[in-house]
Amino acid sequence: MNTVELIKKKREKKQLTVEEIKFLVNNYTKGKIPEYQFSAFLMATFLNGMTVEETAALTEAMLYSGIIINLDSIPGAKVDKHSTGGVGDKTSLILAPIVAAAGVNVPMISGRGLGHTGGTLDKLEAITGFRTDVTLSQYKSIIKKSGMVLASQTKNIVPADKLMYALRDVTATVESIPLITGSIMSKKLAEGIDGLVLDIKTGSGAFMKELKDAKILANSLINTAKAFDKKVIGIITDMNQPLGNYIGNWLEVVESVEALQGKDIPDLMTVTHKLAGAMIYLGGKASSIDEGVEVSKEMIKNGKAFDKLLQVVKLQKGEISILKDLSKYPKSKFTEQIIASKSGYLGAVDNYEVGMAALQLGAGRLTKDDIIEPKAGIIFNPKIGDKIKKGDLIATLFTDNKKAIDSAKSRIENSLSYSKTTVKKPKLIKSVLT
Amino acid sequence: MNTVELIKKKREKKQLTVEEIKFLVNNYTKGKIPEYQFSAFLMATFLNGMTVEETAALTEAMLYSGIIINLDSIPGAKVDKHSTGGVGDKTSLILAPIVAAAGVNVPMISGRGLGHTGGTLDKLEAITGFRTDVTLSQYKSIIKKSGMVLASQTKNIVPADKLMYALRDVTATVESIPLITGSIMSKKLAEGIDGLVLDIKTGSGAFMKELKDAKILANSLINTAKAFDKKVIGIITDMNQPLGNYIGNWLEVVESVEALQGKDIPDLMTVTHKLAGAMIYLGGKASSIDEGVEVSKEMIKNGKAFDKLLQVVKLQKGEISILKDLSKYPKSKFTEQIIASKSGYLGAVDNYEVGMAALQLGAGRLTKDDIIEPKAGIIFNPKIGDKIKKGDLIATLFTDNKKAIDSAKSRIENSLSYSKTTVKKPKLIKSVLT
Repeated sequence: MNTVELIKKKREKKQLTVEEIKFLVNNYTKGKIPEYQFSAFLMATFLNGMTVEETAALTEAMLYSGIIINLDSIPGAKVDKHSTGGVGDKTSLILAPIVAAAGVNVPMISGRGLGHTGGTLDKLEAITGFRTDVTLSQYKSIIKKSGMVLASQTKNIVPADKLMYALRDVTATVESIPLITGSIMSKKLAEGIDGLVLDIKTGSGAFMKELKDAKILANSLINTAKAFDKKVIGIITDMNQPLGNYIGNWLEVVESVEALQGKDIPDLMTVTHKLAGAMIYLGGKASSIDEGVEVSKEMIKNGKAFDKLLQVVKLQKGEISILKDLSKYPKSKFTEQIIASKSGYLGAVDNYEVGMAALQLGAGRLTKDDIIEPKAGIIFNPKIGDKIKKGDLIATLFTDNKKAIDSAKSRIENSLSYSKTTVKKPKLIKSVLT
Repeated sequence: MNTVELIKKKREKKQLTVEEIKFLVNNYTKGKIPEYQFSAFLMATFLNGMTVEETAALTEAMLYSGIIINLDSIPGAKVDKHSTGGVGDKTSLILAPIVAAAGVNVPMISGRGLGHTGGTLDKLEAITGFRTDVTLSQYKSIIKKSGMVLASQTKNIVPADKLMYALRDVTATVESIPLITGSIMSKKLAEGIDGLVLDIKTGSGAFMKELKDAKILANSLINTAKAFDKKVIGIITDMNQPLGNYIGNWLEVVESVEALQGKDIPDLMTVTHKLAGAMIYLGGKASSIDEGVEVSKEMIKNGKAFDKLLQVVKLQKGEISILKDLSKYPKSKFTEQIIASKSGYLGAVDNYEVGMAALQLGAGRLTKDDIIEPKAGIIFNPKIGDKIKKGDLIATLFTDNKKAIDSAKSRIENSLSYSKTTVKKPKLIKSVLT
């Protein structure tokens, strides 16, 4: 096979065969196809797309660039969740213990945050001592003991993704449905799962701003999961404002712990229970998503989900005393309040700006090498549709970096749109796709 | 400026500014933008195109990557011709002396052949001793003495083109109208010309198989020439069969000499006179293209054009004795005749295949490093529309490489389509655009 001919084929919007896609991915991963050729292929793919078959072939080629974990020795179903990312999205921390407590294994391998969105690994590592870098045998033994694990990706899982993402990042080829699909699905398939629930976020704080784009991505992911005979449910959820009220790594652990202890955080728990319910259903512990949602709520009520969190944090070397008494955690050097300067209904939030404000305060990274400050973040009070009075507390900022405060403050202030008339609250669950 | 943002802009089909295009070309040429980013930009340009303004900016950025020759010290107009290339296309060798003999300077810098098409430099170098690698001062002094020069590109003329072409070649981004335009026009503008005649070939032996694509390319080249205030005429000519009857470097010199000595080769001379006429008109030595054609014919009849060829060959160190007695040239080791196996009208020629057959015999290169055999080639007799009788001589092959004969022979045999009914001869001059 000839690399130039294959680039030309994609350039001319012809369908590549499974063998041709394997040739490209394998040889790029091995360093036999130079970056300048692969980037031309990536751009042609970005602009001309891929069929369902091509996307599945891409995923498979990426998947087989590394090891695939075999969890057959562990009894019971293995179901994971993947979110396309958002602001204040801490559902993984809450639903993984819920689902494990309900008797479905959750072998979760997560990523780090980049840009305006957070990452589950960064949140977990805000817990003092918590180790996400488990070995393969630890990964299996933690699941065996607790029914779940919260791990980071090891080097030998989908090495192609790391190489491909690095090139996409510098060649303006990140936001491509087939390339995103290959990246997400190859990593999830490598975990050894039977089923997967996808949380496709849409709105101002999501990668997919428009519902129609979110649906396209959801269908691409679902079709690819099905090509590998995996059970799959895609749920499109709202990301037009922060999910819950806490943004920032330790702050999101706090809100997750409070949620697991029974605190009612309506938007956060509506989404979390829906996702957890779908996972419990896929794992065979409920006969429908709705019944799964009831099981999920029960796991909080009976305390089993919070106990499960404590169990797994202990197994992964985290300090559970801090989770039992959240006030023990160190405090940020600076706090700053944002007060409403006028009255009205909250009409919209530019949630990307809220995420960027949190990043500026120290909660996120602009580049892979930036260092996160776990304490930094925002408590963001209002929800779209709320009636706000001048003088109300909109948000509290937490940071060790005094210089970041002014800019973060004005970002948040500018992110808010007020309306004189009542505003409808956005629907949290937009669509359930199977 | 940020390279990724500029790639993204082109990816989203937005118009890049002059400054942005300069930034990309200049920094790539200087090695400051890596190949993997520039290739993504090239593919985005290939698929999303460029506006007239962007194409002119690209051409300008490429042009100013090197020196621009100043011919102001030489009196009279300077007019060149560029052909998009074809099989048996030796018009440059005939028209340059014609136009120079008519009193218009022809500062011609040519390229080498690649793939199925020949290159003027390779043809010239078939003349024993002929040097195309003249210095800048020789370039000027040869024009001063003879009114023409037939030179190769020096390293300091449009270095960006060499770097860009090398990358396009391995990333399937060659056949792009704006990229082709930038490559052609930057090199022609660097010659120091006032006017340019473009020979845009269309048909089975051309890069532009379809007339509509040839017109798009012609308009892109013409618009770019005008953006630089150059006089320009674009002529779209037929390349559905070899131009003239001789294909191969020395063979094309032979046919050119015979043409300059007055031999009537209808298709070749129709195209050559039209192009020469347009050049003479642009150079102010005729009041119309048609009048220029008459001047062109006169330059052959009065012998001045052939004398001009002898003069310039001598100035460029070629052996003119061989041009005066063509039989002195060494002969190929092997000759092979192709005889018509059936009767009928010649309906079509796959001219790409004829070009590839010549290449196999030694007349061309598949890669830049292949070595050409000047004697190798084909005398191809029939023209589309001709009545052929079984037993007629179709073609004679010349080669030193016996192993190539069978394959070249079957390529040519397979390139011919016969018809039982009469076939219309293709129109040689398809369109004249200004």
